Amino acid sequence: MQKVALVGAGLIGQAWAIVFARAGYRVALYDAEAVVLDGAKAAIAARLEDLESFGLVSDPDAIAARVRTTDNLEEALDGAAHVQENAPERVEVKREVFGELDRLAGPDAVLASSTSGIPASAFTEGLAGRQRCLVAHPINPPYLVPLVELCPAPWTDPAIVERTFDLMRAAGQSPIRLRKEIRGFVVNPMQGALIGAALKLVEGGYASAEDVDIAIRDGIGLRWSFMGPFETIDLNAPGGIADYLRRYGPLYAAIEREQEGPAAWDDGGLIARVEAERRQFLAQDRLKTRSEWRDRRLMALAAHKAKVKKEIGE
Amino acid sequence: MQKVALVGAGLIGQAWAIVFARAGYRVALYDAEAVVLDGAKAAIAARLEDLESFGLVSDPDAIAARVRTTDNLEEALDGAAHVQENAPERVEVKREVFGELDRLAGPDAVLASSTSGIPASAFTEGLAGRQRCLVAHPINPPYLVPLVELCPAPWTDPAIVERTFDLMRAAGQSPIRLRKEIRGFVVNPMQGALIGAALKLVEGGYASAEDVDIAIRDGIGLRWSFMGPFETIDLNAPGGIADYLRRYGPLYAAIEREQEGPAAWDDGGLIARVEAERRQFLAQDRLKTRSEWRDRRLMALAAHKAKVKKEIGE
Repeated sequence: MQKVALVGAGLIGQAWAIVFARAGYRVALYDAEAVVLDGAKAAIAARLEDLESFGLVSDPDAIAARVRTTDNLEEALDGAAHVQENAPERVEVKREVFGELDRLAGPDAVLASSTSGIPASAFTEGLAGRQRCLVAHPINPPYLVPLVELCPAPWTDPAIVERTFDLMRAAGQSPIRLRKEIRGFVVNPMQGALIGAALKLVEGGYASAEDVDIAIRDGIGLRWSFMGPFETIDLNAPGGIADYLRRYGPLYAAIEREQEGPAAWDDGGLIARVEAERRQFLAQDRLKTRSEWRDRRLMALAAHKAKVKKEIGE
Repeated sequence: MQKVALVGAGLIGQAWAIVFARAGYRVALYDAEAVVLDGAKAAIAARLEDLESFGLVSDPDAIAARVRTTDNLEEALDGAAHVQENAPERVEVKREVFGELDRLAGPDAVLASSTSGIPASAFTEGLAGRQRCLVAHPINPPYLVPLVELCPAPWTDPAIVERTFDLMRAAGQSPIRLRKEIRGFVVNPMQGALIGAALKLVEGGYASAEDVDIAIRDGIGLRWSFMGPFETIDLNAPGGIADYLRRYGPLYAAIEREQEGPAAWDDGGLIARVEAERRQFLAQDRLKTRSEWRDRRLMALAAHKAKVKKEIGE
């Protein structure tokens, strides 16, 4: 099997290690700090046990054995077909790391960044191998949430995007191809629009933050876990999506006009209100426990989706 | 058990019949057309069989036996504690039906409308019993998607909202209380914001409609099927939601500025493009088959959520 090099062994690097090793790839997990690597090994082993308990992997030891940690970057990159960078989210760090990767990695290696917000053009422009660089943005944690947003710089070779697409598919992920750079890629503009609308509902005094959450998780969010927004509305009018937009477009346009204007992203008073309401339901010191609950729910949902995909179809 | 009267035996009336009969209520299902009632009985029986096959009900015959159909409105309303109206979505129809309901229903009956878009104030103002009227808007189909949006008119008695809230809870639904009228209630402003952002991504040439769908169903939509958008971000920063909004609010604000302006709800060219792309994945004549697939997936998801709620907690 091909070798994948992961540069940076924090949470995202660890998660990628599980993704690629689970799919049979040989994984080199690099970090400059030996202590980070020790922690990473233990965390990966613990996480693989969790995944096994949900039936999501069958041989955790064999998977863990495919992950080799190293604090030697050249060793990590040696022979790697794909390099996935997981450094801190600062453009000057990305620029430095990508300079080094382009210098040290084999000429055929793809160089991908996990950045959630910095376009590849901002840290690859001056590189000799800039045509082999792109963003491959995962949703945390990628071994449970398969989406990967592939976003090329203007100079990224389309064949590199295709190779990365195929690799991610082969690794069991669900890659999508952006056609050009955009701030926040695809998920964040949609998530931002939804959160912005949610904030306006609370700001306007129409509903509590908790009721807004219930409206999604016990309402429209159910469909969105197995169909996107376009397929959802395609099936919600007898004639399909164009029929739907003819029927309900005017309603959405009217809502949009009434709720016009930017969301109150920096309204301290509103943020304090939403924060206070959340803390009634979940005390600050229970955030960690609740995050563990979320991860178990995501594992159960991943197992459910794999099962119904076989039984009912996708 | 209490009696619930359902006025209108189309798809929504049938679905409400399953909700209330499943919870043990006696249900009177009224329609002026006897042929509609015959169709409704058969459809309810068929749907209960589907639900049984997913473990979502255990005694379909007993449930069906609790639903009595009638084309006599007075008989349907006699002794009903709750009346749920499911007439066509036209304000003059709602006004006429509510006039009749207020005249004929017992003085203690709550009068609720299933309307998805007309505020209760638009069709209850002149009624002697207007304080007992409100909207109780389901998401289709309510026996699989538990959310019910309760939206009072300015004159609705708060105690009536509370009674309806308790009834919906007792029926196994997940009601939320709007504090005042707003176009589209809570779900549609959020769904509209998301679809609007999705349309802008396609319009701007950043991604295909299919990739936008994948971004939700294999990405952020997974979390939204068991957590709302606020809880999602509350768990996505170490310090909770206020910490998250401090970190990522500027990103969302920048995206919002870049994507400013109304979505192209009536751009025929864009709608035709999205429609054409959807039809590549799903031919027009397969919309019905795909809707049946969606219903089976919703049933499987409802069964999954009930199971993990017990095993992992909510």
